[in-house]
Amino acid sequence: MSRFAPLPDPPYYAVIFTAQRTEGDHGYDAMAAQMVTLAEDQPGYIGAESTRDAGGLGITVSYWADEDSLKAWKEVAQHLLAQKLGKTRWYQHYTLRVARVERAYDGPEGR
Amino acid sequence: MSRFAPLPDPPYYAVIFTAQRTEGDHGYDAMAAQMVTLAEDQPGYIGAESTRDAGGLGITVSYWADEDSLKAWKEVAQHLLAQKLGKTRWYQHYTLRVARVERAYDGPEGR
Repeated sequence: MSRFAPLPDPPYYAVIFTAQRTEGDHGYDAMAAQMVTLAEDQPGYIGAESTRDAGGLGITVSYWADEDSLKAWKEVAQHLLAQKLGKTRWYQHYTLRVARVERAYDGPEGR
Repeated sequence: MSRFAPLPDPPYYAVIFTAQRTEGDHGYDAMAAQMVTLAEDQPGYIGAESTRDAGGLGITVSYWADEDSLKAWKEVAQHLLAQKLGKTRWYQHYTLRVARVERAYDGPEGR
């Protein structure tokens, strides 16, 4: 499966979530997998890209068709639980930015 | 040094660069370090967040004050060379998205 999200025509929305994990799993991997499955079923979900290094710094960018779809996802009950556990258990620190994608391309061209 | 970029008041711009590395270094680490130093000297540069997993999938998000500053960065001569080497040598595939950050926060609150 590709680890890249689709590239629809802009505009659409990106949620850029950067987070430093705490030590240990504490149920994180299971919940993260569940959140991916749940997000995929949400209206307006385009895709996501996610990576984390050995030092525990992760970046997940999820892409959404419009503001309404990302706001609805924020309020999904199981996702609210994940957000709570993120605050109390999994993350030393995180930033979340909502951004409107204006242009996009992929490459490399001409290889 | 913090691996998180500053959180200025929106709006500002995010360049979301997701890339799958090829095998081996091929001068990548040295060039990447040089690009960070060079970006830091650019007008309008806010900061960047970057991580890559053992499978070679990396996400780097750089933040810029406005469209002009990120366009100027795209045209910097040494950065043009890095872009070229990225296409021919370092990346199997990449996506680049330019997005306008509309809101942002950090956490966890209340820990």
